[in-house]
Amino acid sequence: MADLSNVQALLFDVFGTVVDWHGSVTGELSALGAKHGIDGDWNEFAKTWRRGYLQNTRKIAEGGTGSLNVDVMHREILEDILGTPEWSKFGAALTPEVRGELNLAWHRLNGWPDTVTGLYALKKQIIISTLSNGNIRLLVDMAKYADLPWDTVFSSELFGSFKPDPKVYLGAVKHLSLEPHNCAMVAAHIYDLRAAASVGMRTIYVRRPGEQPPDIEEVKSKSEGGDVDVVVNSFTELAALLAERK
Amino acid sequence: MADLSNVQALLFDVFGTVVDWHGSVTGELSALGAKHGIDGDWNEFAKTWRRGYLQNTRKIAEGGTGSLNVDVMHREILEDILGTPEWSKFGAALTPEVRGELNLAWHRLNGWPDTVTGLYALKKQIIISTLSNGNIRLLVDMAKYADLPWDTVFSSELFGSFKPDPKVYLGAVKHLSLEPHNCAMVAAHIYDLRAAASVGMRTIYVRRPGEQPPDIEEVKSKSEGGDVDVVVNSFTELAALLAERK
Repeated sequence: MADLSNVQALLFDVFGTVVDWHGSVTGELSALGAKHGIDGDWNEFAKTWRRGYLQNTRKIAEGGTGSLNVDVMHREILEDILGTPEWSKFGAALTPEVRGELNLAWHRLNGWPDTVTGLYALKKQIIISTLSNGNIRLLVDMAKYADLPWDTVFSSELFGSFKPDPKVYLGAVKHLSLEPHNCAMVAAHIYDLRAAASVGMRTIYVRRPGEQPPDIEEVKSKSEGGDVDVVVNSFTELAALLAERK
Repeated sequence: MADLSNVQALLFDVFGTVVDWHGSVTGELSALGAKHGIDGDWNEFAKTWRRGYLQNTRKIAEGGTGSLNVDVMHREILEDILGTPEWSKFGAALTPEVRGELNLAWHRLNGWPDTVTGLYALKKQIIISTLSNGNIRLLVDMAKYADLPWDTVFSSELFGSFKPDPKVYLGAVKHLSLEPHNCAMVAAHIYDLRAAASVGMRTIYVRRPGEQPPDIEEVKSKSEGGDVDVVVNSFTELAALLAERK
């Protein structure tokens, strides 16, 4: 725990780390399909949608071009998926208005079981903020929907790029009037934590079902020979760990 | 009320509108003076400090140079005041550490009596955010101290200027994915509301003791022949007004 002793703020990745995007989006797709009498592999649809987002944000983080607003990006990917032969029947059933509404499924994601309790406990001890590639409005809507008590909302949108571009992490640290080692990144994805560590931030890995690709080896803390500062199974476990600092 | 019918977000000025800076800062100065056996016109000290801030931010909003971080700016003004003959005895008693701690008095401001209840009631209906010239860390600390449940924290710091520069208002509107007429500025100062109106935002004036200079005529709503959309006496009154929209 020595590595977290001077941490004054936690910056949270959101999709997958704070909210269960997969369960929530698959649920909305499945309900919409049922309404229109259409069946399909909704699990795969949700994964393709998410994969498109990861590919686009990664491309922009590496200097490529594209929309910095994730709502716009999600809509473009949705249109692409609905234009494929596999999903053409579903696409034909959806008016532009319904597609717009479906696109906002990403604003209506539910937290993991420990999320809300854990964030409220953490907020009493330390500054908690998002640091997400999602746009601010999306993150604000999600927080209202899922009862996420952020002290503030940082989005890569504010810094003109996407994670894992270092300037996103450094932008948030600067606006908190802190040094990188006073901030910890909390994420369920090792690429995000490695980028945070590269600018001097502390790193907290949270195990979340389905978020770590199966072909990547298990993430471990430095004390276990790995490369992150702390590994936890939930935000409530993290809150208990931080409480021990006092 | 017709003018607020499409408003989806409220952007709040903070100093004077949400928190009673004058009472809080005067109280801290007075307590520190008593500790060092020094008496003085603490009311005047607080007003001079605030005036320096208003002059500096105004200068930068009009294109001048200076620190965009209000913590830094407050400290520079504090040093200037303590360097005057009038306050030299007080200055001699304060180490750099104590001055740094005193400077953070601006992070420990109390809300007006209706502030917390009103903001919680508003948050259930609509997006509520700061739009302040204070820096983000200051606003986050203040929110934790005074229990202000912001959905997010916007600071002029994010937009490279200070209110009343139009780009500060337009920056917040853009990051909420809204049009200006879907946002209302809430402030106890007419200059702030006039700048918000100039970019197309709606305007809500809140009467706060001592915030409107005595030489300016009473602020009135458009229906009373004035130039703001709504005038209220408290955030709880505003919450009740918005609830009538349904």
